Amino acid sequence: MLPIVKGLLAGERRALARAISIIDNDESESREIIKQIFGKTGDARTVGFTGPGGAGKSSLVGKLIPECQALGYKVAILAVDPTSPVTGGAILGDRVRMQDNLDDEKVFMRSMASRGAVGGVSKSLRNAIRILDAAGYNLVLVESVGAGQLEIEISRVVDLTVVVFTPHTGDNVQAVKAGLTEIGDMYVVNKADLEGANTLYLTILDLIGDTERKPVVLKTSAKTKKGVRELAKNIDKLLKEKSINYKERGRKMLEDELRDMVLNAVEKKASIMLASSNKYSEFVDKLTKKEIDPYAAAEELAAGLFG
Amino acid sequence: MLPIVKGLLAGERRALARAISIIDNDESESREIIKQIFGKTGDARTVGFTGPGGAGKSSLVGKLIPECQALGYKVAILAVDPTSPVTGGAILGDRVRMQDNLDDEKVFMRSMASRGAVGGVSKSLRNAIRILDAAGYNLVLVESVGAGQLEIEISRVVDLTVVVFTPHTGDNVQAVKAGLTEIGDMYVVNKADLEGANTLYLTILDLIGDTERKPVVLKTSAKTKKGVRELAKNIDKLLKEKSINYKERGRKMLEDELRDMVLNAVEKKASIMLASSNKYSEFVDKLTKKEIDPYAAAEELAAGLFG
Repeated sequence: MLPIVKGLLAGERRALARAISIIDNDESESREIIKQIFGKTGDARTVGFTGPGGAGKSSLVGKLIPECQALGYKVAILAVDPTSPVTGGAILGDRVRMQDNLDDEKVFMRSMASRGAVGGVSKSLRNAIRILDAAGYNLVLVESVGAGQLEIEISRVVDLTVVVFTPHTGDNVQAVKAGLTEIGDMYVVNKADLEGANTLYLTILDLIGDTERKPVVLKTSAKTKKGVRELAKNIDKLLKEKSINYKERGRKMLEDELRDMVLNAVEKKASIMLASSNKYSEFVDKLTKKEIDPYAAAEELAAGLFG
Repeated sequence: MLPIVKGLLAGERRALARAISIIDNDESESREIIKQIFGKTGDARTVGFTGPGGAGKSSLVGKLIPECQALGYKVAILAVDPTSPVTGGAILGDRVRMQDNLDDEKVFMRSMASRGAVGGVSKSLRNAIRILDAAGYNLVLVESVGAGQLEIEISRVVDLTVVVFTPHTGDNVQAVKAGLTEIGDMYVVNKADLEGANTLYLTILDLIGDTERKPVVLKTSAKTKKGVRELAKNIDKLLKEKSINYKERGRKMLEDELRDMVLNAVEKKASIMLASSNKYSEFVDKLTKKEIDPYAAAEELAAGLFG
């Protein structure tokens, strides 16, 4: 067993942090770590928090921690930052409030980069959750910053998705109409002390009223802590209700993961073959001379390379 | 020749709109349309406008139209909307101001969905630009709503990228630091009549001062039209300067496109093979029983399927 795995199984925070970094950076040790801990996973439940930037997700998640601990969970937080695919650096540095909890030995918090292609996030996230799971955390709260594709991706990887709105962020109604209703198991109007909160609450109720799933809609205020305990209780309840289906859902998630990984491997291989193919630059030549169109070129090239 | 191609080459707006819809929805006719027009393309220049939501890109692009027309360009606008991958519906409906120009016979404006996976946008966009090019538009302004991955993707497809900020949107400095500096050929502080515009302008100058490319930084106000003509002139100038390298750049763009299309075709094929493979569900079974780890499962499955 790798020393780092021994460390994280023993609950050493430094080993845990390092292991997640290895996963997040897709370092070569990732594979061996996952191999060694995989058999010890499957117990952690995961909740994603998503919604427009400025909705106060960080603060809300911060306030949720003690409430979830009071319900008996050992809580870890993963914050997914949208990063520039160019520099890999995080655009948002607004995590400071949450970091207050870092000193608390009972909670573990990590920010992850969502670098590289869509799809990369799922892989990092799945494996980071496994590491936390193996280290004994049984509730992982995943926070993401609103960005369409990323939200959908995260919702595929977690057990429950909570969508957070506030009266102050624009386009709430449009967002609700346009798809966030389809990923949310629960809706929260945060900053409920602000003007317009009740109207937004009623609008959301109205908009999602027709959906089959009938998700829970709640009002919270991270500032006054109002509604935060109720949110924790609802999350707990829903996780327990849903757990009847965890076997099925777990299988579906593994199926997705395996598919992603195989397609990724195939693409990587194809990319290498392409780069070293003479045909490739021949076809680019033909394209620049307009002797062939892009569809025909791609088809002929793909057929030539991969039968 | 397809009637729709005949129509769009004759400048019929209805044919043009329909052809772009076909491309945007990836309908089966896409291929034949591109095949028939590909030889007639290569003249249009393209400028991408990107930056945080709320920076006033739509208004600015709207005001730029007459200025670019005055410089002799026949202008078309493509607005890329971030859509929910679930519903395919556009989240932002804030295009109304720009649509004022729709009645103007000299300009063509279309909103495109950025549906589906990252990568899908590039394909739609490249082919929509070709259609406009074939229809005689020689300047295509592409507007996108700020969302990391999408911006990078668009910047790969256009000749010039203009990054638009305003004093009123948050995280400007962070965004400049974190990657938008690497895609911009030109920076605009819009809403320059607002307080803080000058500070932002100086900050941007300062931040990008060290970069090798030394992009142009301008102040504009879509409201008062101040600086809009200067922006148009700078775009024109830069397009003409850059045109020395268009052959090389054009080749690079076709290379990227061909690579994307081949990898896409390979992935599609692999996905179909996987779905019909017995091994796939065998490995998922093994995973649920933890008899194998995900890395090993993916590797064995990929090897088994594709040698």
